[in-house]
Amino acid sequence: MLASNYVREKYSKKFIKISKSEREGFYKILFSRRDVRSHFTDKKDITLSTLIRILNAAHHAPSVGFSQPWNFIVIKDIQTREKIRNSFFKEYKKSVELLETDKKRKKIYQSLKLEGILESNINICITYDSTRFGPFIIGTTAIPETGIYSVCCAIQNLWLAARAEEVGVGWVSILSNKDLKKILSIPRHIKPIAYLCLGYVSEFVNKPDLERSRWLQRMNLKDLIFLEKWGNDLISQEKRNKVNEK
Amino acid sequence: MLASNYVREKYSKKFIKISKSEREGFYKILFSRRDVRSHFTDKKDITLSTLIRILNAAHHAPSVGFSQPWNFIVIKDIQTREKIRNSFFKEYKKSVELLETDKKRKKIYQSLKLEGILESNINICITYDSTRFGPFIIGTTAIPETGIYSVCCAIQNLWLAARAEEVGVGWVSILSNKDLKKILSIPRHIKPIAYLCLGYVSEFVNKPDLERSRWLQRMNLKDLIFLEKWGNDLISQEKRNKVNEK
Repeated sequence: MLASNYVREKYSKKFIKISKSEREGFYKILFSRRDVRSHFTDKKDITLSTLIRILNAAHHAPSVGFSQPWNFIVIKDIQTREKIRNSFFKEYKKSVELLETDKKRKKIYQSLKLEGILESNINICITYDSTRFGPFIIGTTAIPETGIYSVCCAIQNLWLAARAEEVGVGWVSILSNKDLKKILSIPRHIKPIAYLCLGYVSEFVNKPDLERSRWLQRMNLKDLIFLEKWGNDLISQEKRNKVNEK
Repeated sequence: MLASNYVREKYSKKFIKISKSEREGFYKILFSRRDVRSHFTDKKDITLSTLIRILNAAHHAPSVGFSQPWNFIVIKDIQTREKIRNSFFKEYKKSVELLETDKKRKKIYQSLKLEGILESNINICITYDSTRFGPFIIGTTAIPETGIYSVCCAIQNLWLAARAEEVGVGWVSILSNKDLKKILSIPRHIKPIAYLCLGYVSEFVNKPDLERSRWLQRMNLKDLIFLEKWGNDLISQEKRNKVNEK
């Protein structure tokens, strides 16, 4: 089950066609993935085999120079989680103070559910090891941060695989990495990248929580795409080209 | 086509079941995704609608505080790409010098194909805007780097969506971000995160290039997972628990 050989044998053909229904199923998973905080249920545990499938998806993310610089610490113990929640509370208090002059936003902010550390079934801390397979790692010589970027790609693979398994994931980033390292005995040279809460859910809501609460709006994609250079609107360029071709 | 409304309407039910075949199709896409350098073909262009579908997938990645801090610069112009390839050559030369004392690895390194800037159909530079919706962005007050992590999640969404569309993606990180900013007129406060080459391919090979060339091996997943604390092997713990239960 753990062996990547399973994966290899199954997908060893030179060119694997993706059917229309497979593509549609993929988009369904991608667009219905949510950052879960409020909807964890305690009706069902994540089994070891489901957990391994989700982590195996993370492990098959791209990594710079094939460095695979990730580790996964699975946390079940409630006392450990309580310590981590205390770190959340400490950092949360500090963040509320930053909104002192903006009473309206402060009120909305304080009404938001921002973590599901205890209500979720398990927590996973994902870390980055800059020394793995080093010192010479292909692709990191000009931009060393790419190792961290690889870990983030693994996190997104994990998140989507969890959705495919109908498991919700919530990323808690209102935390002190210093606390996290102490609580989880993480060595000095290892950097925590994400702290995730996983569990089965009562629902995957149709929009992100912060969009539903009107904290922020989803931006229009066309305003985010440029052609050739920064600031050069792609969509209007493409339209102009089409007119010129006629 | 651009509107997220399409997505919303399609997936607006409270709980969307993922079928077994959808889940299998998802894993097929995930495990057969490759970092493409050698297999781009010039037989077919990526259409605007395919490109928009791929970028829309990126735009639906999770982002800290729903900040959506990404932009996408699509590069088609060959002269621009030649400038960027010159930046690659410059950084590549520096990286070769680092292997001066390791003749064997140097030889393998020099035999590797590390970029497909000109052979691919289009290039995309993905950037991070730390000022978007700021200064107060939920979830970034304790760990400001989470904004960059969001951009990386968008990159992995893009990569997988491209695979679902049978489009290959190669990430070139042997580049100078300073050069990139100059060539693409990227403002001072914007950080380039990834430079990607996209195009249809002759094949998606069954293993990463660096694994096929025996540069490095895929690590065993079980060695990467810990339980409760760093260094505490999950798999042997779980086995022990099962024995104790009997």
